[in-house]
Amino acid sequence: MPEGHKKHRYKLVYFQGKGRGEPIRLIFHHFGVDFDDIRLSQEEWQAHKQLKIAPMDQLPYLVVDDEKLVLCQSMTIARYLAKSFGRSQGFAGKGITEAALSDMYADGVNDIITSYLYNVMFIKDDAAKKKASKEFYKTKYTNFLDTYQEALKNNSSKHENSGHFLVGKQLTYADFVFACALHTCDEVMPKSLKNHSLLNDYLTYIKNLPTIKDYIEKNW
Amino acid sequence: MPEGHKKHRYKLVYFQGKGRGEPIRLIFHHFGVDFDDIRLSQEEWQAHKQLKIAPMDQLPYLVVDDEKLVLCQSMTIARYLAKSFGRSQGFAGKGITEAALSDMYADGVNDIITSYLYNVMFIKDDAAKKKASKEFYKTKYTNFLDTYQEALKNNSSKHENSGHFLVGKQLTYADFVFACALHTCDEVMPKSLKNHSLLNDYLTYIKNLPTIKDYIEKNW
Repeated sequence: MPEGHKKHRYKLVYFQGKGRGEPIRLIFHHFGVDFDDIRLSQEEWQAHKQLKIAPMDQLPYLVVDDEKLVLCQSMTIARYLAKSFGRSQGFAGKGITEAALSDMYADGVNDIITSYLYNVMFIKDDAAKKKASKEFYKTKYTNFLDTYQEALKNNSSKHENSGHFLVGKQLTYADFVFACALHTCDEVMPKSLKNHSLLNDYLTYIKNLPTIKDYIEKNW
Repeated sequence: MPEGHKKHRYKLVYFQGKGRGEPIRLIFHHFGVDFDDIRLSQEEWQAHKQLKIAPMDQLPYLVVDDEKLVLCQSMTIARYLAKSFGRSQGFAGKGITEAALSDMYADGVNDIITSYLYNVMFIKDDAAKKKASKEFYKTKYTNFLDTYQEALKNNSSKHENSGHFLVGKQLTYADFVFACALHTCDEVMPKSLKNHSLLNDYLTYIKNLPTIKDYIEKNW
């Protein structure tokens, strides 16, 4: 049973897609906590900006109760909710060492997404974009997959957890952050996980967690 | 007196400059905790990479004791040390709300640095770089300064702390992250804070904290 969730009302504001909002949505669903899932089009966001609620003019942002607390930065929001709902289960990492490892893996995913946006997605010229995309997948993306597959392997042999979790013996918010990224990459480039079967199994495991399975089947 | 620091040995590996390593170095100095401050040239880093210690092939990384724990991602490292040395003082934020606000401001700084790197620094053509730099300072950088000045003002009126801290009533690691960024911007573009006197006073206050004043005078 999530801690303290009955006391608060939550509103998450993001774009319509999964992107940087989806790990946060998964956390709400996983803990069975109600939230307003506000999804804006690009045009609506331009108008919404004028309200001056988003702390750094960025999406996603989270409103807790009547703007008593407004947070932006997706990893910050995910970590905050992880502690709010799942502290006793170690969902933000058990103790400061596992908390740090969870943060590191979550920040690492955030890094590769940012790198993809700037190095590929923001390129306007079609030919240049195609070339950059190939290069990105061949180097940075493959390194990323290798690094995380190795992390899963090491953590699994240390904690005997069958490779289901990045850190420690149980699910942390970093697993949702990572699984969302893996799924998106697999959508953009089908079969991108074919050389990383451990990651493929991991993604399947996370997507089938009973707490989020229904949501994922309807929305992914 | 910092908590638990006598039990552990720390090694921070980064480049020679301040960059993403400096807030971490400030945390060590602030708490009077010894650490190996390893500074690599670009050439040394290329050779060092072959050792395969850096968890995501990135600097900075932190080694705790004999590689029992190796962390990368600068905000992750800063947060980990903030909790290790200053938890009882709320240096990582008091309670989960102030922890989230500290994380948000730290992540926001990290964001603007990344944006600067990709939008300005990585541009190779001199004329294009000059144009991008002007544009960056006129829009994103000014927005950033406005946002953080507003945050300082709001927090100051809420907690009566004279505008010295971003969050709550006391110093958090986010203040070191922010002060390092402000100083670097001021170095790159002198007088960039002339329209933000509150930020100028804030930076002066942080630089003169008795715990870090000597280090800053010798190194900045």
